[in-house]
Amino acid sequence: MQKVCAIVGIGPGNGRALVRRFCLEGYRVAMLSRDQDYLSELEREFPSARAFQCDATDSTAVQGAFEGIHKSLGPVSALVYNAGMGVFKTIDEASEDDFEQCWRVNTLGLMLAARAALPQLRLHQPANLIVTGASAAWRGRAGSAPFASAKAAQRSLAQSLARQLGPENIHVAYLVIDGVIDLPRTRESLPDKPDDFFIKADAVADAVWALTQQDPSGWTFELDLRPFGESW
Amino acid sequence: MQKVCAIVGIGPGNGRALVRRFCLEGYRVAMLSRDQDYLSELEREFPSARAFQCDATDSTAVQGAFEGIHKSLGPVSALVYNAGMGVFKTIDEASEDDFEQCWRVNTLGLMLAARAALPQLRLHQPANLIVTGASAAWRGRAGSAPFASAKAAQRSLAQSLARQLGPENIHVAYLVIDGVIDLPRTRESLPDKPDDFFIKADAVADAVWALTQQDPSGWTFELDLRPFGESW
Amino acid sequence: MQKVCAIVGIGPGNGRALVRRFCLEGYRVAMLSRDQDYLSELEREFPSARAFQCDATDSTAVQGAFEGIHKSLGPVSALVYNAGMGVFKTIDEASEDDFEQCWRVNTLGLMLAARAALPQLRLHQPANLIVTGASAAWRGRAGSAPFASAKAAQRSLAQSLARQLGPENIHVAYLVIDGVIDLPRTRESLPDKPDDFFIKADAVADAVWALTQQDPSGWTFELDLRPFGESW
Amino acid sequence: MQKVCAIVGIGPGNGRALVRRFCLEGYRVAMLSRDQDYLSELEREFPSARAFQCDATDSTAVQGAFEGIHKSLGPVSALVYNAGMGVFKTIDEASEDDFEQCWRVNTLGLMLAARAALPQLRLHQPANLIVTGASAAWRGRAGSAPFASAKAAQRSLAQSLARQLGPENIHVAYLVIDGVIDLPRTRESLPDKPDDFFIKADAVADAVWALTQQDPSGWTFELDLRPFGESW
Repeated sequence: MQKVCAIVGIGPGNGRALVRRFCLEGYRVAMLSRDQDYLSELEREFPSARAFQCDATDSTAVQGAFEGIHKSLGPVSALVYNAGMGVFKTIDEASEDDFEQCWRVNTLGLMLAARAALPQLRLHQPANLIVTGASAAWRGRAGSAPFASAKAAQRSLAQSLARQLGPENIHVAYLVIDGVIDLPRTRESLPDKPDDFFIKADAVADAVWALTQQDPSGWTFELDLRPFGESW
Repeated sequence: MQKVCAIVGIGPGNGRALVRRFCLEGYRVAMLSRDQDYLSELEREFPSARAFQCDATDSTAVQGAFEGIHKSLGPVSALVYNAGMGVFKTIDEASEDDFEQCWRVNTLGLMLAARAALPQLRLHQPANLIVTGASAAWRGRAGSAPFASAKAAQRSLAQSLARQLGPENIHVAYLVIDGVIDLPRTRESLPDKPDDFFIKADAVADAVWALTQQDPSGWTFELDLRPFGESW
Repeated sequence: MQKVCAIVGIGPGNGRALVRRFCLEGYRVAMLSRDQDYLSELEREFPSARAFQCDATDSTAVQGAFEGIHKSLGPVSALVYNAGMGVFKTIDEASEDDFEQCWRVNTLGLMLAARAALPQLRLHQPANLIVTGASAAWRGRAGSAPFASAKAAQRSLAQSLARQLGPENIHVAYLVIDGVIDLPRTRESLPDKPDDFFIKADAVADAVWALTQQDPSGWTFELDLRPFGESW
Repeated sequence: MQKVCAIVGIGPGNGRALVRRFCLEGYRVAMLSRDQDYLSELEREFPSARAFQCDATDSTAVQGAFEGIHKSLGPVSALVYNAGMGVFKTIDEASEDDFEQCWRVNTLGLMLAARAALPQLRLHQPANLIVTGASAAWRGRAGSAPFASAKAAQRSLAQSLARQLGPENIHVAYLVIDGVIDLPRTRESLPDKPDDFFIKADAVADAVWALTQQDPSGWTFELDLRPFGESW
């Protein structure tokens, strides 16, 4: 059956690298994002990929997008949940809305995408559901309360999904990114950092890809990813 | 200064045991719950405790309740966040609303109570903020997706609070309850279980109380609690 | 039945504080240490406590000491394993012997003491086996390879013991001490640190004591302990 | 520079699969084992691989073997520590020697191999040090006390090594194998298990290989590996 990859959360970092990688590997690629301009840019760069504009936190929109993917590309065999939102504030600085938006994008969005994709994933043997997470999922720091709690919830949800769906031959994995992705935007905001401070977006795409290639007799649920010089 | 304890989330289990314990120890006790009938029952049982009806997920109501406590009892020196909501369903069974309600009660409610109580806690040296959590915070199982992800988020938030507030002499701790509280309701739903299957609500109250008594040179953030015969 | 506490690993920090605490609570206290001079000093300070000189890593000596305790004080109802050895070196600096000695004192010694005490602990309902560990058990750092790996092994062994012995009504707990105990020796080596940098030995003794007082319906396996201002 | 892989701990499972994989990828492969008969068998099967008989827990022998590798094959660029020993007993069943042998093979052997290989690994940029561990490293169960405590120590040591050596461009990773390797021996002892109960040795070799191929901007320290149907 034709391999179809849906990537939720497209940006100039991991998102673009993932689109590129799955296109090169011969997948039909569906790109989901709220940002129509960036989607159009990627469609020009990757003519075989298809854009589906949608808000990852809007249940109806997500459902509609996955139905559209099924119709136009075939049932999804790999879902990569790459949508994320980071608010780095303390309890004194963060608003109720900061907490809610972080939870909606990181956690609820994963639930909505998983639910919408599941009937399609179940048509493949095996299928993949990969989540790009963060080391904040492992610990809450003073200044990352909204982000860390949402990432912890996201990781827990991914674990519930892995335990439920593994026996159905759907491989769920959680990628713990421990570092800053190398992007024009992050370079600008951290101008004093050396090259090797950053994680290359292609390294993330490689790791996601490698997860989809594992033999079902040896599946990984969780792996961390950090630059070699990172102090941890 | 007079010790004042606010307990958010009052029910016939931990909630009642906590009210009893803090009353016995000479605290002024504020009880926060949506359930006016049960609050009235507890006011009759513990005449020195004061009820503040309020929905723990409603920002304005929580803010108002804590202002009322300050005025009538004095500034809160110990906040116990005991509100909880458990939905035990798989991704196929759970609705978007199941996830959202679990997150609102377990996670957002903690944020709202912490924020409302902080100005009062900061008037005490030391103060306490204790959260009654669950072992679901440590792992997501297939059938506990909404509950586990919310508890993981709650635990992460408590950890962020502990790291921020410790140096301000506010002791934040997270109690990982690994088992079923002994209640008429749980006994009824698990009629075949022996007595020692259940955690006594008083054991939870003892643990919370012990946390509030620790010397600031040796504070606990996290401890687990389970019946001696529990397989884990 | 008379309560008897055996404390393995006696020094001027936790060890002395534990002896003092259990004596005050009316226990018969057995002190085990290699250091005859310090044992004699403690015997003078705590006339009701009894010294049993023994090397905690010597199987025969440990067995003999526990037989002696049984004969002279009665069967042990609480074993506190407080022996420890810390070597803080990298793989380049540490010798094979550094690794072996750390493992012998922290891990093997616990196994030997547990095995020697078990027949006596099994005569009590409930009994206690408390281990004073360290946060190094949770993570290996570059400069703590011998110590961290031994503490990780110690914690794992304590967990195996807890799972096996809980249903026999023997409460096994692991205390994760995350900080430096307040001692003349540590004060001298860290002269610039403020008072509140240190954990008071009495806070450790309080925590151990509190664990022995828990109701069997709510036992803690693991809890951390750190000074309120500690960054973690 | 020529790639040279030293594999410590060769058996008919992971060991053989690792030799095969690194030979196919063009590495010069050094096989270290106590078992001369099996080494000879592998030398016949993989003519390009070289056997170095040695006891992984004997410091002098390990040192000698790595000097021999350096002389005959060149400096090691990848060390795979695959030696392991499992004793599955409770505290009542296990002897002091059971604990010591598990620790010597799983933990001390890793330290000895790492120390012997380090001067050679440091000649490569980057180099790899991969440890095949077990999920017992994450938790101690009643019946796995000697094995679990040794694996926890091994994992902690690997973490110390990763933190120290990452910045030197030596990638240290720990593979958490959560399941039973598919071998004639394990099939025989578990005759009722279906095919998909077992982890294929090639899946382990794939995972080790994938770790050695990661870009230094995104290195994994730890990943788990389990059969898709495994309940965890």
